Amino acid sequence: VVTGHVAVLGEGSMGTTLAEAVARGHRPSTLWCRDAAVARAVRDRRRNPNHFPAQELSPHLTATGELEEAVRGAALVIVAVGSPRMRETTRALKSVLKPGQVLLSATKGIELSTLKRMSEVLAEDLETSAVGTISGPNVTPDIMAGQLTAIVIASREPAVIDLGARALETPTLRVFGNDDLTGVELAGVLKNAIAVAMGIATGLDCPSNTRSFLFTRGLAEIRQLALALGGKPDTFYGLAGIGDLFLTSTSPDSLNYRLGIELGRHTPLAGILVGMPEVPEGINSTRGCCALAERAGVPMPLANCARRILDGELSPSALLDALASAQAFGVDRDALH
Amino acid sequence: VVTGHVAVLGEGSMGTTLAEAVARGHRPSTLWCRDAAVARAVRDRRRNPNHFPAQELSPHLTATGELEEAVRGAALVIVAVGSPRMRETTRALKSVLKPGQVLLSATKGIELSTLKRMSEVLAEDLETSAVGTISGPNVTPDIMAGQLTAIVIASREPAVIDLGARALETPTLRVFGNDDLTGVELAGVLKNAIAVAMGIATGLDCPSNTRSFLFTRGLAEIRQLALALGGKPDTFYGLAGIGDLFLTSTSPDSLNYRLGIELGRHTPLAGILVGMPEVPEGINSTRGCCALAERAGVPMPLANCARRILDGELSPSALLDALASAQAFGVDRDALH
Repeated sequence: VVTGHVAVLGEGSMGTTLAEAVARGHRPSTLWCRDAAVARAVRDRRRNPNHFPAQELSPHLTATGELEEAVRGAALVIVAVGSPRMRETTRALKSVLKPGQVLLSATKGIELSTLKRMSEVLAEDLETSAVGTISGPNVTPDIMAGQLTAIVIASREPAVIDLGARALETPTLRVFGNDDLTGVELAGVLKNAIAVAMGIATGLDCPSNTRSFLFTRGLAEIRQLALALGGKPDTFYGLAGIGDLFLTSTSPDSLNYRLGIELGRHTPLAGILVGMPEVPEGINSTRGCCALAERAGVPMPLANCARRILDGELSPSALLDALASAQAFGVDRDALH
Repeated sequence: VVTGHVAVLGEGSMGTTLAEAVARGHRPSTLWCRDAAVARAVRDRRRNPNHFPAQELSPHLTATGELEEAVRGAALVIVAVGSPRMRETTRALKSVLKPGQVLLSATKGIELSTLKRMSEVLAEDLETSAVGTISGPNVTPDIMAGQLTAIVIASREPAVIDLGARALETPTLRVFGNDDLTGVELAGVLKNAIAVAMGIATGLDCPSNTRSFLFTRGLAEIRQLALALGGKPDTFYGLAGIGDLFLTSTSPDSLNYRLGIELGRHTPLAGILVGMPEVPEGINSTRGCCALAERAGVPMPLANCARRILDGELSPSALLDALASAQAFGVDRDALH
């Protein structure tokens, strides 16, 4: 199916889960772990002690602490490190990657210093166009549990989508393709800001009507920004758009949503992070979203409000004031103004 | 603001709530009740004994059992009877409506015998183009409780939108306009089929990934049908589209969602209805949605599956089989087929 194994870089929950998903289709995968002790545990005991420690991993999955060993001979390299680590990872990859190896980012984040998307960092540092992103509405516990899940692979190159699909598809993990790399990747980042806002609303005990209002106007905001940055108009209708936004706005397994809920309950950010297994991408994504919006000149009152609540500049209830005075744009015109 | 009072026809939860919303803005409203005893209770004791019996209604709201009395002198007539009663209500209206009176349907349903939308029934029987619909993500208990809520008024005539907005807007009830009457009205009907499906998934204890997958493919299905029937491409991005779908797919106050949950738990339809305050529009809407799709030649595997589960022809778990074999169309192409 896939010639050569699949290398997955990063031993967080997403990296571990994707390496396991590949292996469950009887396709060899190698998980690169920064922490050599985790690599040994995965290789020798078939457990990741930090994520899903009770889950016995597939025998088709191995692990290493050496990047060169992980990547050598791989047909596909999936990069699943946190966004702050993407640049150093691609620089390390530069000396080991061979022509023809395909890259997929599984990180829904943005490089804050440059406001570049993850696949832009990959393509730039590694001088290749064989890049894409993995997105869609999927929290890792459900994939790990073998629950029916949809996944999106986006790339401008159909061969990248096909390779990724062949590496990941199983009867319970359905892979869909999308050629709008920019739109899909932006959706994955920007939706985090709205997930945080939705969490804040939940933390404030907002009822269904208010939450649905926020969901829709939040979607309108991030879609407006994605359009301004080159995303296609229909992408937000898809799995990587509203699918992922729905998930992260409702699932207790979404760290970004949980982050928002705690913010809504007036828990300071530092205190929230203590109780989390990893730093939610939503923190960087929300800041990145607002920085992108400012640069593009797109007004985003709700995302900006979420960012300011996150950074302790506003009280959570300010979000409701922003929503109550929302001016319409896009589909719903405001009838009164 | 509005010259003349607002007549609201139908003493169900939606009619009662909209009449109260009008009155809370110090605008006179008259609720027409089929049941004269309910009319008396509303008028004399400021209570609707059947819906929100603990809620004292505004002194600006009155009620009558006489249709002619309710409508006489009204600038705006809001029709909030269940879809099976729409045709008889418009026929009764014909002899009392005067030129210049504007009509809004607040019923998210379809006439099963003709597959006509509610505003089509109004426009046809009453020979007027001053018609529109009220939609958006709003369950009645939240409006009644004064929670921040968005409402959509759709009409091809801007004057209808403006009149409706002036009748309903309050600081906590924000009104948005949309000129795509066909798309908004179809969204309100078709979303019920997906809300039932989402409920079935919840009743089956589906996790977040599966529910998000279903939400997105369900949205793709109903949007495809709405486009085939003349709706505008962007309407489903709005409050009456994904906003309402989000609400009815997550809110315990949505009767259609609750109907689906019980179906997912293998409760027969007759048993479900016993425990409900009114017959959910979702039953007729789901059947109407599938009939519309068949006539238009649009494949809707998920909605059809929900319809067959509703009608006892399939077991609830069939929905997951349909989802697992979902073929993509629209935004997400299937990479493998």
